[in-house]
Amino acid sequence: MRLAIDAMGGDHAPREIVLGAMKAVEEFPNINITLVGDETKILEHLKQHSRIDILHTTEVILGTDEPVRAVRRKKSSSMVLAASLVAEGKADACISAGNTGALMAAGLFVVGRIDGIDRPALSPTLPTIGGEGFLLLDVGANVDAKPENLLQYAIMGSIYCEKVRGVENPRVGLLNIGTEDKKGNELTKNTFSLLKEANLNFIGNVEARDLLEGVADVVVTDGFTGNMVLKTIEGTAISVFNMLKTALMSNLKSKLAAAVLKPDLKQLKNKMDYSEYGGAGLFGLKAPVIKAHGSSNAKAVYSAIRQTREMVEKDVTNLIKKATEK
Amino acid sequence: MRLAIDAMGGDHAPREIVLGAMKAVEEFPNINITLVGDETKILEHLKQHSRIDILHTTEVILGTDEPVRAVRRKKSSSMVLAASLVAEGKADACISAGNTGALMAAGLFVVGRIDGIDRPALSPTLPTIGGEGFLLLDVGANVDAKPENLLQYAIMGSIYCEKVRGVENPRVGLLNIGTEDKKGNELTKNTFSLLKEANLNFIGNVEARDLLEGVADVVVTDGFTGNMVLKTIEGTAISVFNMLKTALMSNLKSKLAAAVLKPDLKQLKNKMDYSEYGGAGLFGLKAPVIKAHGSSNAKAVYSAIRQTREMVEKDVTNLIKKATEK
Repeated sequence: MRLAIDAMGGDHAPREIVLGAMKAVEEFPNINITLVGDETKILEHLKQHSRIDILHTTEVILGTDEPVRAVRRKKSSSMVLAASLVAEGKADACISAGNTGALMAAGLFVVGRIDGIDRPALSPTLPTIGGEGFLLLDVGANVDAKPENLLQYAIMGSIYCEKVRGVENPRVGLLNIGTEDKKGNELTKNTFSLLKEANLNFIGNVEARDLLEGVADVVVTDGFTGNMVLKTIEGTAISVFNMLKTALMSNLKSKLAAAVLKPDLKQLKNKMDYSEYGGAGLFGLKAPVIKAHGSSNAKAVYSAIRQTREMVEKDVTNLIKKATEK
Repeated sequence: MRLAIDAMGGDHAPREIVLGAMKAVEEFPNINITLVGDETKILEHLKQHSRIDILHTTEVILGTDEPVRAVRRKKSSSMVLAASLVAEGKADACISAGNTGALMAAGLFVVGRIDGIDRPALSPTLPTIGGEGFLLLDVGANVDAKPENLLQYAIMGSIYCEKVRGVENPRVGLLNIGTEDKKGNELTKNTFSLLKEANLNFIGNVEARDLLEGVADVVVTDGFTGNMVLKTIEGTAISVFNMLKTALMSNLKSKLAAAVLKPDLKQLKNKMDYSEYGGAGLFGLKAPVIKAHGSSNAKAVYSAIRQTREMVEKDVTNLIKKATEK
């Protein structure tokens, strides 16, 4: 298979993207990679490799660009060209760590939706205390969602979780403000009955406070709420860690104790590390499109490639297509 | 002034409620308290005090009761009787640590809305790293909100923040999935322009990840999103602390170091302690109705009483009434 990778997207591009790609081709004999971006800059980091080639372009979509306009106007940007390779059948999937909104637009306008899918969903896997992780969708592809959209998210999430993450009969939860069946706003109330009738392992409403405890394998919600919850988890974890850091540096005694604890604290931080879990899938498109975290290092890029390879191998796109055909 | 307190609501009732009330009357010479609940149980903890009396009842609304039905049927419950004292003008405000939904229903049906207010808002003050805290509203009184509701939340929140919390010209932020003016779902986009035109110190959209950093003094959102964010902050903080605890107990060396750090970690946990900030106000009613946290100890009850006293003294209800008159 061939994967197209936007070599210029993300805070540490192209260096970490190139390093991640090299690690991946060494690990997986069945993948070829096309790095899309500035050839000179890419070659600074790329050691000769027979299964990596470069599609040269100097145009780049910036993090500050307005997404839809950027995709429409910057047709030779590394991100749009990577998506085009997929659309033209020259690559099986694409990955970018760049502008999230732009990648969603490129996925929608360049790669295109699966016929039966009304709205694609952006779907990251988030860490849990036990380490198994959970899939949250949607986190912002579609901010004004309908119950039918959430049903499709549940179907797509279940397929992904089972095939790529190896979770048998994944537990699907509806994110809500209480666990009782009749709780919630109009959207969640109407979604509840749809999910109940569907051929899914639906475990009912789940609350935001139980997410990190691993209450469900697949958690569905509208893009506005999902984005909010994602950012609240990130923000709270960072704030608590920062407060901890300040507390540990407050005097000499605590500094010494903190030094002893360093390995334990490091392990703790690793547990919360998104980069272990690959990128966020944009589910519902005609081919896998993966958003790696903006601050991705080589390890995170490698994880995203491993995950994308699994999606292609397990034919997730066609399984979604069949499951959502009307 | 006289405050009516539901002595039977919350995980540690009536003991902690009674102890908190006793501390408050000692501190504040201008308040009288009516404790509503089971006289025998209350008297187990109450030392004789001339400014505390008891309204006896044995009926109680449970945490598991369906809120609206409970308020309609359990007319002699401690919570409904406390609200009735306010409605009849026999008390200036009421406080309960019991069933949140039931207190919202009692506030709405027994105490009643201010004429100009379409929907009351449940409004807790949450901790920030700097210690100043921020007011979040609504966290669940009204799960399907309209832009006009959010505008009223902003007005009520500003008045409360200025008068009771002493924040000059409080910064009002609209909780959204990005800081750019045009971001968000239909609700936030429409609310943005309303807030911009209002006579408020509106600072624009704020993101969930910046809340604990103190990005605004008053943060407005619909009750569904607010509840979600509140529970995500709580859940994430608890999960991170639990992981920290496990890490610190993993071996003898870390146990010893953790013992040294105990005071620092304790201080850190105190910073995140809701009980310092009083209860959540149910704003928009004809008199202050305050929801203390379900797990309130005496200190948290005392804080809620102090806060309620401020609301009565500063005449917050009338200020809200004047500001929202059409």
